[in-house]
Amino acid sequence: MELDLQLYSVRTDLALEAKEMAQGPQKTPIPGVNEEVEEADGIKVTRLAVANDAGSQAIGRAIGNYVTLEVPALRGGDTGLQQKVSVVFAREFEHFMDRIGIDRNSSVLIVGLGNWNVTPDSLGPLVVENSLITRQFYELVPDQVSPGYRNVSAIAPGVLGLTGIESSEVVQGIIDRTKPDVIIAIDALASRSLERINTTIQIADIGIHPGSGIGNKRRGLTKEILGIPCIAIGVPTVCYASTIVNNVLEMMSRHFGQAGAGATQTKEIMGMLDDISEHERLSLVKEVLEPLGHDLIVTPKEIDEFIEEIANIVASGLNAALHEAVDPGNVGAYTH
Amino acid sequence: MELDLQLYSVRTDLALEAKEMAQGPQKTPIPGVNEEVEEADGIKVTRLAVANDAGSQAIGRAIGNYVTLEVPALRGGDTGLQQKVSVVFAREFEHFMDRIGIDRNSSVLIVGLGNWNVTPDSLGPLVVENSLITRQFYELVPDQVSPGYRNVSAIAPGVLGLTGIESSEVVQGIIDRTKPDVIIAIDALASRSLERINTTIQIADIGIHPGSGIGNKRRGLTKEILGIPCIAIGVPTVCYASTIVNNVLEMMSRHFGQAGAGATQTKEIMGMLDDISEHERLSLVKEVLEPLGHDLIVTPKEIDEFIEEIANIVASGLNAALHEAVDPGNVGAYTH
Amino acid sequence: MELDLQLYSVRTDLALEAKEMAQGPQKTPIPGVNEEVEEADGIKVTRLAVANDAGSQAIGRAIGNYVTLEVPALRGGDTGLQQKVSVVFAREFEHFMDRIGIDRNSSVLIVGLGNWNVTPDSLGPLVVENSLITRQFYELVPDQVSPGYRNVSAIAPGVLGLTGIESSEVVQGIIDRTKPDVIIAIDALASRSLERINTTIQIADIGIHPGSGIGNKRRGLTKEILGIPCIAIGVPTVCYASTIVNNVLEMMSRHFGQAGAGATQTKEIMGMLDDISEHERLSLVKEVLEPLGHDLIVTPKEIDEFIEEIANIVASGLNAALHEAVDPGNVGAYTH
Amino acid sequence: MELDLQLYSVRTDLALEAKEMAQGPQKTPIPGVNEEVEEADGIKVTRLAVANDAGSQAIGRAIGNYVTLEVPALRGGDTGLQQKVSVVFAREFEHFMDRIGIDRNSSVLIVGLGNWNVTPDSLGPLVVENSLITRQFYELVPDQVSPGYRNVSAIAPGVLGLTGIESSEVVQGIIDRTKPDVIIAIDALASRSLERINTTIQIADIGIHPGSGIGNKRRGLTKEILGIPCIAIGVPTVCYASTIVNNVLEMMSRHFGQAGAGATQTKEIMGMLDDISEHERLSLVKEVLEPLGHDLIVTPKEIDEFIEEIANIVASGLNAALHEAVDPGNVGAYTH
Repeated sequence: MELDLQLYSVRTDLALEAKEMAQGPQKTPIPGVNEEVEEADGIKVTRLAVANDAGSQAIGRAIGNYVTLEVPALRGGDTGLQQKVSVVFAREFEHFMDRIGIDRNSSVLIVGLGNWNVTPDSLGPLVVENSLITRQFYELVPDQVSPGYRNVSAIAPGVLGLTGIESSEVVQGIIDRTKPDVIIAIDALASRSLERINTTIQIADIGIHPGSGIGNKRRGLTKEILGIPCIAIGVPTVCYASTIVNNVLEMMSRHFGQAGAGATQTKEIMGMLDDISEHERLSLVKEVLEPLGHDLIVTPKEIDEFIEEIANIVASGLNAALHEAVDPGNVGAYTH
Repeated sequence: MELDLQLYSVRTDLALEAKEMAQGPQKTPIPGVNEEVEEADGIKVTRLAVANDAGSQAIGRAIGNYVTLEVPALRGGDTGLQQKVSVVFAREFEHFMDRIGIDRNSSVLIVGLGNWNVTPDSLGPLVVENSLITRQFYELVPDQVSPGYRNVSAIAPGVLGLTGIESSEVVQGIIDRTKPDVIIAIDALASRSLERINTTIQIADIGIHPGSGIGNKRRGLTKEILGIPCIAIGVPTVCYASTIVNNVLEMMSRHFGQAGAGATQTKEIMGMLDDISEHERLSLVKEVLEPLGHDLIVTPKEIDEFIEEIANIVASGLNAALHEAVDPGNVGAYTH
Repeated sequence: MELDLQLYSVRTDLALEAKEMAQGPQKTPIPGVNEEVEEADGIKVTRLAVANDAGSQAIGRAIGNYVTLEVPALRGGDTGLQQKVSVVFAREFEHFMDRIGIDRNSSVLIVGLGNWNVTPDSLGPLVVENSLITRQFYELVPDQVSPGYRNVSAIAPGVLGLTGIESSEVVQGIIDRTKPDVIIAIDALASRSLERINTTIQIADIGIHPGSGIGNKRRGLTKEILGIPCIAIGVPTVCYASTIVNNVLEMMSRHFGQAGAGATQTKEIMGMLDDISEHERLSLVKEVLEPLGHDLIVTPKEIDEFIEEIANIVASGLNAALHEAVDPGNVGAYTH
Repeated sequence: MELDLQLYSVRTDLALEAKEMAQGPQKTPIPGVNEEVEEADGIKVTRLAVANDAGSQAIGRAIGNYVTLEVPALRGGDTGLQQKVSVVFAREFEHFMDRIGIDRNSSVLIVGLGNWNVTPDSLGPLVVENSLITRQFYELVPDQVSPGYRNVSAIAPGVLGLTGIESSEVVQGIIDRTKPDVIIAIDALASRSLERINTTIQIADIGIHPGSGIGNKRRGLTKEILGIPCIAIGVPTVCYASTIVNNVLEMMSRHFGQAGAGATQTKEIMGMLDDISEHERLSLVKEVLEPLGHDLIVTPKEIDEFIEEIANIVASGLNAALHEAVDPGNVGAYTH
């Protein structure tokens, strides 16, 4: 028998995961990728800057800024923690906009990508529903808008299968008409590991690239295409069955190692599955699953509740970050 | 005391109601307004053509074609009748497009106006959800589209309060990008009388005019604005408390008359309310209700079920009318 | 012509309305009905006690206690006011339970009457969804329940058309099994006047009587039937078209009177409609509407939002009133 | 290192899976378990009868009858196939009731177990919503019920966390009051393998046992407890991450074997994971996942659509099987 080990790319929409995979278990620093980590109250914030082409190629991500919030306990349903994450997200998002030079008075179009009929893909539309929209006042009664607010509009453009129109076409049409200064695009993502689902939020200034997110966008939302900056906010809500298996095999390998089993013993237990690289292992798993049509995309059973909680966190955080008059401690009042 | 009888216009979005009001109880024919009535199986179809300025001014409607389906029994929840109405609607809509010169191969953008969070205003978005969308196939695999289908896309642009953007701006942006040949806009309407709610469907080739429909659009969707024809499909789903009262007073007046009460006796019962014109009576009612903020817009208690049924009828009919390959007898299979 | 003035009863589920109608425009006090009114912050609280048979017969209500909160501004969507109403409701409900002798440790079964598929009838099920349920902890880990909580369970029994079972039968079956000390039944009501819809909350210790509420219960939930006290909480969410008309005619009569028109002039305007009693006028209106099947039950267009707000107010108030550990100022945290 | 191989039981709610596991790869027949298989149109029907204690112990299932429909293509969204499955299900269910001696006139209470707020657990409540309910007519107008119908009522009792009451207590209370002849309980199940999710329907006459289904019922619904027969209908809608991994490892083991790799080579690739029994392998996987809280229960991303389709199939089938007057070819008309 000969193993046909095609090199599947390990699918992830998270720069942090891409970086970790590039680093390998030794966590070797990567030239051209700067990293800053801060952790408090169970919330880990990682600020990555992919500074040059070398860094970009090493981790397979565009040059740009990436902020990731990791909150493993977020799936516990603790409303106090949710509130905290929302406040930290607001702060990080505000700093992020400052850092990349978005003016505090710039007008914003929030784009909620995804399919509202598919619960794990409904994050974007849900955030749009809970966002504080003000553009109509700037249009109709511009002299009556209180200070502390910003011009914000929002759209959930739907998905190709529902509308027959690429979401990027809908967004471009609206940009042409309404001339916002910056786009904030919200999208549900696929993760490489089950534990990240609904516990991680990524902010990036590289926009949305084709093929990313759940719905497999065929065209992107980037500064090159749109002509204005596009900040992407993403939360992993699904993963492939194959990546779960691969992920667990990796955990097993690590587990038996830590449990004191020598390399020989771990190999005895797991055979080649312990030895080979992550890419090769995933190839093996996919080789088995795909022909049977069993490489399903899955989501946790509790997705209805998770998606509502995380959408509230993101919308509350955005409302506080975008409008100075909205108090980060009281952001909840503006969402359903 | 002096009655301050301002001349409120009796609000209706239906050409048929406008015509009936202009005709008065004597049903005088109106020059410049041609009418064709057909009735079968409890479905009354009225085809109005407002042919010239005289007709237009007489009934306060733009020059154009108006087809109205009236089905008083539709509120009974009879699925057999619903199926029939859907078939008649499909036939009428197809003829309507032929009559106004829409080519059978022209591409269509369906626009579902209204607010999906407000049940009586959710007709448009619901029809969009149940429409058979094909544009993506024409874009991606044009040579694989079976004959008998037409290029159809669809969008529910939301309402100003939710998006900060006029729905007409969203639609215009999408038209600029996707270049459809014709717009079909679906909208929930306000009716002058309670009995029309969810029992009447209007097709018109005059587009959507500012201030029509439930959500009080500030800009219209018309050929003048969009550059392409816009067919409007409307269903009354709400009415004002004042119009209910006015409507009932009219029914009382008619009722006592028919019951054999002479003019004197009816006047005895109803005073001036019997005498005065409809406009004056409505003014009186509004004079009382509006200062108290009590001229509420109301909808029948069973609106959730009604709106779903009528949206299915319209979507099924549209699918059959737009795609030759869709059998009008089997239209239900394409909707939820 | 002879008017066939049957004496229809003016349908209302509110004791306050029944009392006002019995009092007439002169607001004559009614022997056997004691009243206490308190008003602050736009919230009017009326505490009625129907003390004896005379009072009961005069207003057509059972002997018992009735507390009504009236908040005309509640339809404005002001979240601050909603919070206040919730706190006042919690206080009144707590006092109400004390007054009628419900022990602070008594176990409670909350019953959410109504049909979750019919928005204006979904108040009960929505309150159940947002109630803080604890009985499972008392059953499974009784020694670990923190002080400050009470044993609370909840059920939405559905309606006869959906389940084939009277909601009272479902409730009695559950009472037999779980032995709660007291029932709190939530129900959407029909109102006599449009302005009360979603602005009034009634608490009463007389349970739910057959034919009350929207869904026309055929059997009641009363202490006589259940063997334990049943407190009813009701909010008007619909009214009949006929009562709207009647209500407006009354307002017109009052309006022209106040506007300085003498009795003669008002009669000139409104004919007999001014003269006759409320019962007679309503009979007239119904005589016209009912044969046509047009005496629809209607609800405001914005019912989706209203019902969610009022369900939150009631659930938040109940949670604070039932569990000492729940802070009335922070009740929102326990509801969706 | 010493592997602490606790013998976890491989969790499955399907008798067919339990039998297959007991049989092992050699598919040895099991004494006391009779099997009948029929396959047509891509629908495989397996009728298992666990005839005696030996059979019962061998597969770890109660003595009784089990019918399983397996339709691998069901996830494809083909409405024609769905219709066919519904017809086959109706036929099998009718025969099943005959075989176990349920009279054609016996009255039925349908119990929809599960949590309507958790999509993959909402099968039971959805089937209840779409069932044809008639008991109210037998109670109110018994002499007017057309022949060909049966006395059917239905309840969705909710889950312990929402109501504070065990669903079995709610059901028992209702049985005491309404005295049905037989219970049909619908429940969403956990599966051992990802491919069964939403493609398999099980009918069994052994009722619902504690700990089965998604929500981990603590008390069962069986003839012993209820006093009347309870037929259970179950559909797997979730599985554990650990069972996915285990399932895939098994597939890998089989795959490499079939691919011509000798036992030695397969062992080289998979180490002990190939060698050990299914129980031991699952133990290994759980040993790794559980301490990290990562043995999540997952469901396919498309669960919203799947659950609606399968609920329609089951409800349509039940309606046709329970009411002779309902035509199995036209069952769809009775569901939403």
